[in-house]
Amino acid sequence: MAPPPKYLTGNVAAINEFIDRFDVFLLDCDGVLWSGDHLFEGIVETLEMLRSRGKKVVFVTNNSTKSRPDYQKKLTSKGIPSDVEEIFASAYSSAIYISRILQLPAPKNKVFVIGESGIESELRTENVPFIGGTDPALRRDITPEDYDKMADGSMLDPDVGVVLAGLDFHINYLKLALGYQYLQRGAVFLVTNEDSTLPMNHTFFPGAGSISIPLVNMTGQKPTALGKPSQAMMDAIEGKFQLDRARTCMVGDRLNTDIQFGIEGGLGGTLAVLTGVSKKEQWEIEGAEIVPAFYVDALSDLRAAKN
Amino acid sequence: MAPPPKYLTGNVAAINEFIDRFDVFLLDCDGVLWSGDHLFEGIVETLEMLRSRGKKVVFVTNNSTKSRPDYQKKLTSKGIPSDVEEIFASAYSSAIYISRILQLPAPKNKVFVIGESGIESELRTENVPFIGGTDPALRRDITPEDYDKMADGSMLDPDVGVVLAGLDFHINYLKLALGYQYLQRGAVFLVTNEDSTLPMNHTFFPGAGSISIPLVNMTGQKPTALGKPSQAMMDAIEGKFQLDRARTCMVGDRLNTDIQFGIEGGLGGTLAVLTGVSKKEQWEIEGAEIVPAFYVDALSDLRAAKN
Repeated sequence: MAPPPKYLTGNVAAINEFIDRFDVFLLDCDGVLWSGDHLFEGIVETLEMLRSRGKKVVFVTNNSTKSRPDYQKKLTSKGIPSDVEEIFASAYSSAIYISRILQLPAPKNKVFVIGESGIESELRTENVPFIGGTDPALRRDITPEDYDKMADGSMLDPDVGVVLAGLDFHINYLKLALGYQYLQRGAVFLVTNEDSTLPMNHTFFPGAGSISIPLVNMTGQKPTALGKPSQAMMDAIEGKFQLDRARTCMVGDRLNTDIQFGIEGGLGGTLAVLTGVSKKEQWEIEGAEIVPAFYVDALSDLRAAKN
Repeated sequence: MAPPPKYLTGNVAAINEFIDRFDVFLLDCDGVLWSGDHLFEGIVETLEMLRSRGKKVVFVTNNSTKSRPDYQKKLTSKGIPSDVEEIFASAYSSAIYISRILQLPAPKNKVFVIGESGIESELRTENVPFIGGTDPALRRDITPEDYDKMADGSMLDPDVGVVLAGLDFHINYLKLALGYQYLQRGAVFLVTNEDSTLPMNHTFFPGAGSISIPLVNMTGQKPTALGKPSQAMMDAIEGKFQLDRARTCMVGDRLNTDIQFGIEGGLGGTLAVLTGVSKKEQWEIEGAEIVPAFYVDALSDLRAAKN
């Protein structure tokens, strides 16, 4: 069993020791830096402090609807300075997995996208051909003609080699039917992330994992996920930043995504914050499976280190 | 282990003995009577023979998009004479489960429907109030205002006590988000059936079970299913027809829906036909879990009994 996590809030010596142990902090965003529209107090100063001590920060998010430039705008709108190269989102993670790891030979490397523009932008940046996504031609009801043309294949693009599904606010029967047809014809099944819900306005809405699960149900196939806690995302982060895992810490509010992501990735540490989804009771119970190495009430508690 | 099934095709004595054992035949339709638009040869005559020998036939289908009158039209269009009272479809099964078994006290008995008009018709017949379904107001994209009004509850009908999900060719993010909100507020979770796929045009499209599975994924709740192989449907059939299970035979092409339905229901027999999805190799393998009591190549092979 994992030892209980070290509680850092209010313990200046422990905070300094904690910060000194790491060169890189992978930061989950929602529930750590902000909640919905509300930026937590002291976040900007905390990030400034970390950077002033020479730490690299990387914003790691499962949000698949935004490209990295989109996400940078979001950070900026909340008053958080960032560089686009510090952002690692599941749409980007998916695009580089397809272009650099999967490397299907052209022209059979086209991606059928179920998702929003963030995925399309990142695929474009990586020069990956795609169809679907925000194409208005697919935002309609299925017709009897579609059934015929899917069954005989005439409606399908023979070059599709990958189905990539992420959060799609325009999901419909037609897109699910097309996704299934491509998978049945042998396309590789990828999902940006498997979050079942999307926290918003203090409640939950369908998450990316609940958009792709009909395809999982229909095919019996388990897709490769490119978001936390999938280690495909960790491998991509490591490849991009050439980080030393032993000197990297994952910071997040969700045990079963963020903290598990860091533990499975063999990082030097994980830091849980109590400003989001998970509560400390979850790791304090007997037999808890996912236990962070450290925890604070709020990320801004690390500012005590400045003194 | 179950004994191997008795093969009836071409064995007149065995066919006569088989028919004599039962008073009621529960007939799956697609894959048994027809495939898509193609009515199998000899079906009309076979049904005529069974009726002429005093047998009751019941058409049992998981198709949730059609009411019983709709389904009767379908049978008629294929040249199969039937009475609406001989039809038992999952939309009807769901409606009578809600009105006669669940019996939630009004006004908190309203149903939020994800599905097509067949469900609405059957709910209307049973005087069950409902919203959703084919309401054009829900056939649109989700808006920022929707998020707010779902979070504060102002968009939700406080009388909804049931979420019923079936096959919906107009499924979208808004409907899934609303279904989730009602379930989170304690609504009973019902599904017409759990078929992951819908066989059509010699291929497959998303089935009712793939429409409701995002809600299963989001809530972690297992819904009560009202279609085959759920025994809730068998109980409803038994209640309606006052049948003697020992003298009832389930006829179908799918082991994991039709045949399992009959076996779990403790019927006197099950008859598999080889004109649909399942192949005899599936029950001939070592350790096969679902084995029919009888099988024929095609349902019309029973006509040999006339001689």
